[in-house]
Amino acid sequence: MVNRADVHYFGAGPAPLPTAVLEKASQVLLNYKDKGIGLCEISHRSPEANAILTEAKQALVTLLDIPDDYEILFLQSGGSGEFSAVVYNLVSVWVEKKRAKIAEEVGDDKAEVLKRLRKVVDEELRLDYLVTGSWSLKASQEATRLTGAKHVNIALDARKANDGKFGVVPPEDQWSLTPRTSGGGPAFVYFCDNETVDGVEFPAFPRSLEGDDAPLVCADMSSNFISRKVDVRKYAVIFGGAQKNIGNTGIAIVILRKSLLPPHSTPASPDVLRELNLPVGPIVLDYPTIAKNNSLYNTLPIFDVWVAGQVMAGLVDSYGAKRIGGQEEVSNEKARLIYETLDKYSHVYRVVPDKTARSRMNICFRVHGGDADKEKAFLAGAEKKGLLGLKGHRSVGGIRASNYNAVSIEGAKKLVAFLEEYAQ
Amino acid sequence: MVNRADVHYFGAGPAPLPTAVLEKASQVLLNYKDKGIGLCEISHRSPEANAILTEAKQALVTLLDIPDDYEILFLQSGGSGEFSAVVYNLVSVWVEKKRAKIAEEVGDDKAEVLKRLRKVVDEELRLDYLVTGSWSLKASQEATRLTGAKHVNIALDARKANDGKFGVVPPEDQWSLTPRTSGGGPAFVYFCDNETVDGVEFPAFPRSLEGDDAPLVCADMSSNFISRKVDVRKYAVIFGGAQKNIGNTGIAIVILRKSLLPPHSTPASPDVLRELNLPVGPIVLDYPTIAKNNSLYNTLPIFDVWVAGQVMAGLVDSYGAKRIGGQEEVSNEKARLIYETLDKYSHVYRVVPDKTARSRMNICFRVHGGDADKEKAFLAGAEKKGLLGLKGHRSVGGIRASNYNAVSIEGAKKLVAFLEEYAQ
Ligand SMILES: Cc1ncc(COP(=O)(O)O)c(C=O)c1O
Ligand SMILES: Cc1ncc(COP(=O)(O)O)c(C=O)c1O
Repeated sequence: MVNRADVHYFGAGPAPLPTAVLEKASQVLLNYKDKGIGLCEISHRSPEANAILTEAKQALVTLLDIPDDYEILFLQSGGSGEFSAVVYNLVSVWVEKKRAKIAEEVGDDKAEVLKRLRKVVDEELRLDYLVTGSWSLKASQEATRLTGAKHVNIALDARKANDGKFGVVPPEDQWSLTPRTSGGGPAFVYFCDNETVDGVEFPAFPRSLEGDDAPLVCADMSSNFISRKVDVRKYAVIFGGAQKNIGNTGIAIVILRKSLLPPHSTPASPDVLRELNLPVGPIVLDYPTIAKNNSLYNTLPIFDVWVAGQVMAGLVDSYGAKRIGGQEEVSNEKARLIYETLDKYSHVYRVVPDKTARSRMNICFRVHGGDADKEKAFLAGAEKKGLLGLKGHRSVGGIRASNYNAVSIEGAKKLVAFLEEYAQ
Repeated sequence: MVNRADVHYFGAGPAPLPTAVLEKASQVLLNYKDKGIGLCEISHRSPEANAILTEAKQALVTLLDIPDDYEILFLQSGGSGEFSAVVYNLVSVWVEKKRAKIAEEVGDDKAEVLKRLRKVVDEELRLDYLVTGSWSLKASQEATRLTGAKHVNIALDARKANDGKFGVVPPEDQWSLTPRTSGGGPAFVYFCDNETVDGVEFPAFPRSLEGDDAPLVCADMSSNFISRKVDVRKYAVIFGGAQKNIGNTGIAIVILRKSLLPPHSTPASPDVLRELNLPVGPIVLDYPTIAKNNSLYNTLPIFDVWVAGQVMAGLVDSYGAKRIGGQEEVSNEKARLIYETLDKYSHVYRVVPDKTARSRMNICFRVHGGDADKEKAFLAGAEKKGLLGLKGHRSVGGIRASNYNAVSIEGAKKLVAFLEEYAQ
């Protein structure tokens, strides 16, 4: 029998959770707040569930300094579900804005409004994707599936700057964002802040997406959520599946600028969207509906919200006034320790992505140039030391050490010690 | 402190879970199979997760006698998500079938194919909904949102036969199903086998949906899943959110006729669907994609699959060769006991739905004609006896005793004793 204490787990997601949270979870599963029923059994509309939701939101607000003009949504969804949701929701808001403007000019003639609107959609609706790894690639493919290729602008395919492989974030002057002049620019610009599979992280918020007339920015933070400071105001939508840095599989968290919701913005009617050959999403991914119902339109997995809330409350307690800055220091330090060791033994290890774009969260490297047997031996040796979950993603191969919030400094140091030992 | 043993919980969903399963869950959360990591932490692509998935499927196949030509899907989804999914998926299959037939006649002329296809969609695409309660109503509204009103045929609105209120399943000769002659009949017929809010259950499979040329039938069994025998072959799609009879919130289970999946059926291309002003759904609700990936296209909440698997394995163990028949007997007996008592004291209690359509799962009744104070007192009295979760749905009011699989005969008898005591 292997105990939790014997193991350090570097899985890429689902990922480790704090043992203290799991211990508490194993109690509340059976009996929540001494009510005689467990946390998976209570109603999502009960006062207890409401309190859990409120506390989880509050912890997130505290950690990330989320301004009042942002809404937090919890959805029964994951990262991939949100790939679709951002398209459905932001296209809808974009269309309605254009429609309202045309209707102001044209008046009541619905056929004429539709005719002009169709032209505007055709000529101006552009969704900009910065493709820096497997997940932004998938998100851009979903956008193409949903809206059609003509509306999707791959403003960056990072493989083109790196021999056909992901591993870099090319300089911004090489991006081809939809110009802001034509029709006001893209409906949104999408990127994946941290590419879990390829180990590529945006070093900082892109400068070309800043400024007063900046386009709406959507970022997938599934795998680096609450691991560094984020200036929330720069984003229209931040989303993440919970199962890496925040909790367990079952929910996605969306931080959404309120100006994209009623009464500030109105979504387009489904009839209009269909008329324009644009997609209508399922109601469970409709942000206005979820927001209006305080994330309880449909049954929300309250247990999963509770776990995320406990994890976040733990971070709030640990770092106090430093908030997420505290976790950022720890994340950076753990990543520094590991990369330093990998670089020190560069005759044995090769970090896959470029130095300028290395993820602090998913550390991808090869052993002895990717020799299959040697990498197998490396993994077996690590496992003997209780270092688990180090196998790279099937599409990339090699080794991936995922260095999420629940991996302790001690865990990182154990990995470093093994890297040293193996190299010598 | 109230213990689980002191309580009988009649919540409508989330709902009670077997204590034995929760006790095991509280262990595996911390350490699964002595690996040193817990069940919410392991990879959904690990051999352990695969075994969990396989075992859950196997238990379901055994219980419901699911034939080989049916596929079982687990999705990170719920009942409402599947309202949308059945529309996206079945409309797509329907369209592609029509398109292929037209293309056979017309040949390569894509514009001509599309023109004819548009006409066929316009004239023939009909989704039939039998609306017998709040959930089928919601499902039909979602179908209207997604495809537009002209494609949705409300073949039955049970309120019209019952003074504007749900509570009956009117005789089949009063239904107005899309005739099978015109264009082959409806793309599908949808009903909710058990209406959780209104306490209405289909007494049996509708006879007008049987026969060799029967239309595709989709049934929502969220709240009566594995509570009675089901002849799976009569259905094209059976789905249910897990959080009532099977497990906890987080997954939906879909039982799907394989002939609706590739290679037997091809979905329409998203471009074609958009051209026809039909909706394109998110990839996470795309049945072919989920099936092709053995339910692991996106991160599946494996903990929730495990819970469902444990619950179902428990039923398999309990009932052996009787399979679901064993649970059916228990469910019927519990419902009989409660309804009999309610009827016995008809001067105190009034069952809301008609006798012919009473749900065995959600027993909705009023106390003293719905007097608010008296119903409050009734609920308080029940709570004192440890009988929890009896408050009716906000839209219906009164009392609702949900009598799912995890409610024991003992629990039902305790409720009966309280009903007796209160009435006397
Ligand atoms: C960055 C990123 N985005 C999206 C996803 C997809 O998430 P899900 O599997 O929950 O759909 C993942 C999953 O690993 C991810 O790492
Ligand atoms: C019969 C039925 N269908 C669908 C739903 C909706 O399920 P969810 O909340 O998981 O979307 C419910 C929820 O109670 C239900 O009882």
